[in-house]
Amino acid sequence: MKNFEYKNPVKIIFGKGTIPKVAGEIPENSRVLMIYGGGSIKRNGVYDQVKNALKNFELFEFGGIEANPHYETCIKAMEVVKANNIDFLLSVGGGSVIDATKFIAAGALYEGEDPWDFFTQRFVIEPKAAIPLGAVLTLPATGSEMNWNSVVSRVSTQEKLAFGSPLVMPQFSVLDPECVFSLPDRQVANGVVDAFVHVMEQYLTYPVNSPLQDRFAEGILHTLIEEGPKVLANRNDYDSAANFMWSATMALNGLIALGVPSDWATHMIGHELTAFHGIDHARTLAIVLPGMMNIKRHNKKDKILQYGERIWGINQGTDDERIDKTIDKTVAFFKSLGVPCTLPEYDVPAETIQKIKERFKTRGSKLGENADIDYNQVEEILTDRL
Amino acid sequence: MKNFEYKNPVKIIFGKGTIPKVAGEIPENSRVLMIYGGGSIKRNGVYDQVKNALKNFELFEFGGIEANPHYETCIKAMEVVKANNIDFLLSVGGGSVIDATKFIAAGALYEGEDPWDFFTQRFVIEPKAAIPLGAVLTLPATGSEMNWNSVVSRVSTQEKLAFGSPLVMPQFSVLDPECVFSLPDRQVANGVVDAFVHVMEQYLTYPVNSPLQDRFAEGILHTLIEEGPKVLANRNDYDSAANFMWSATMALNGLIALGVPSDWATHMIGHELTAFHGIDHARTLAIVLPGMMNIKRHNKKDKILQYGERIWGINQGTDDERIDKTIDKTVAFFKSLGVPCTLPEYDVPAETIQKIKERFKTRGSKLGENADIDYNQVEEILTDRL
Repeated sequence: MKNFEYKNPVKIIFGKGTIPKVAGEIPENSRVLMIYGGGSIKRNGVYDQVKNALKNFELFEFGGIEANPHYETCIKAMEVVKANNIDFLLSVGGGSVIDATKFIAAGALYEGEDPWDFFTQRFVIEPKAAIPLGAVLTLPATGSEMNWNSVVSRVSTQEKLAFGSPLVMPQFSVLDPECVFSLPDRQVANGVVDAFVHVMEQYLTYPVNSPLQDRFAEGILHTLIEEGPKVLANRNDYDSAANFMWSATMALNGLIALGVPSDWATHMIGHELTAFHGIDHARTLAIVLPGMMNIKRHNKKDKILQYGERIWGINQGTDDERIDKTIDKTVAFFKSLGVPCTLPEYDVPAETIQKIKERFKTRGSKLGENADIDYNQVEEILTDRL
Repeated sequence: MKNFEYKNPVKIIFGKGTIPKVAGEIPENSRVLMIYGGGSIKRNGVYDQVKNALKNFELFEFGGIEANPHYETCIKAMEVVKANNIDFLLSVGGGSVIDATKFIAAGALYEGEDPWDFFTQRFVIEPKAAIPLGAVLTLPATGSEMNWNSVVSRVSTQEKLAFGSPLVMPQFSVLDPECVFSLPDRQVANGVVDAFVHVMEQYLTYPVNSPLQDRFAEGILHTLIEEGPKVLANRNDYDSAANFMWSATMALNGLIALGVPSDWATHMIGHELTAFHGIDHARTLAIVLPGMMNIKRHNKKDKILQYGERIWGINQGTDDERIDKTIDKTVAFFKSLGVPCTLPEYDVPAETIQKIKERFKTRGSKLGENADIDYNQVEEILTDRL
């Protein structure tokens, strides 16, 4: 196991009927900006629940955060924050709304010219302050409710980039699994795949003698495999919704990454597919991951074999046969949720592979847990998915 | 899954060579009281490492905290705190030292007459303030380094009681697995059993459809079963020491208890064995747990069968046969670590059972996840261990 440091002070309030508890978590006399997306929270009653709970606060609203939230929209929200002396941000929505809220929180107090600096000069320019924020999660998927990461897309440059800071961790996140009841199939399937691949990015690397982290990761995978289809089949099954929701949070709150290497190359490549073609984030991961497993089968051999055996019961045949079967099982699981795993199924032409290759070439990025995936391997991985 | 709330802001600093990092975690100009036990930290070099790291602080010392820390000793430490205007406590030792430090932290600022109130009137009288504290953990076992619990023994009354408060959570805990290298066999075995039974208290109850919590609990049990014996066999095996240490922390930092029922009757009964006979805490758990499983086999049936199958591979025979085998396997594991599991092996006479029965009768306690273990069942459970 590698050395690590960990501190995760996010307060989780989990369970049915918990949304009204937001009122007790926001400092009295706060000027609150409620940030949300496209209006689903108005249809499922969450908007009314939050408004009702916060009737004793000075409450402002900013709706219209997109899936894959736009830099341009966040900049507008920062102007609302400044114009109204907002001192608390409440994100009501899924991971995109929370990610946007994190950027708005830090960006509104940035003293430089353009807070896009946090993304383009990550680890060099970091936030020095942020407006405190909380979250009401309506869509299990990204884990953003219990971590410090944020991914934002800049439309004008077709870039999708990430930043992170402990200053933008939510003070609290309210997770009411009943929010799952009103989600469309597509969002449930995306959430399951997203959480699944988050685990894989922290698990499917190389062994460092970390049996507890491995078993926690495998526990999340097993639970997603069991509970995801139940949620799809019966949207009002509270227990399955709760197990799905808690699994998605645990998949990316930092815990399973402690002391082990992480990959994240699947995400980095997937982001480009979203940037160029607007494909749902989770679906880009479902496309890229099987290619990653195939092309990096030698570096990842030990963990792919362990994953195949412990998760899918594959323990017969040569190593390569077992790896092939394990990739097939993974693809079959994603497809069973209604998520296709190849580029043509999303109408992505071969030319896009060249554009993405060029982008990584320009950036000089080396991806993956061994920093050995260069632009040529990116091309190989995507070509595998044609 | 039941509703829950969770917030655990303890910063964990984990790994070899991390002890000097304490200096960066304590506020500048603090007047620090370093609290420790019997002197093992002077033999293994931890004392010198901490002293050296804190040479720019005003550093005071209080040694002599006992295993099963004494109320009477903690009261003396509170006087040292007050006399020297101490504003930060650094616990250097195992769970007993951390538990004592938590009590000292809250007791020194208590405005009532006797801070023993926190224990005798738990949930009625709670700390309103505490001196901030941090920990350097030298002995994996209790999980106290990442929770808010404290157990203290009062010698004059032969009582061993618990209190808890978020105010006494450590600001940080430094976990250097190299501290395990110098532990005697007895303390390693105790630590493995202690962590194991902590998991069991939160897992071996009744099912509430919480597959992720179950798998995390099982992951810790598996890891302790694999790694504990390796640590005993080769004290300088860093990876096994690290896996053991991290498992013990995860066993009682609150995570696996979220949304599920907890038992804790084994602990409550075990505490009485320590109070009357001074038996090591972990060893009292090894005595009581098999009796608890046997006498509560009907209430706990579903989870005992799941535990037997997933942890010990027991899936043949009638339910009662499987439960018998599962208890046998659990006892065999404790014995393999050198920890006996019956009362006569600790020279506890049958009369002690009557004394303990009387105590629970006087208190009117109902123990366990169903609050259905009265003093008669306590007698049955202990008689099972004769």
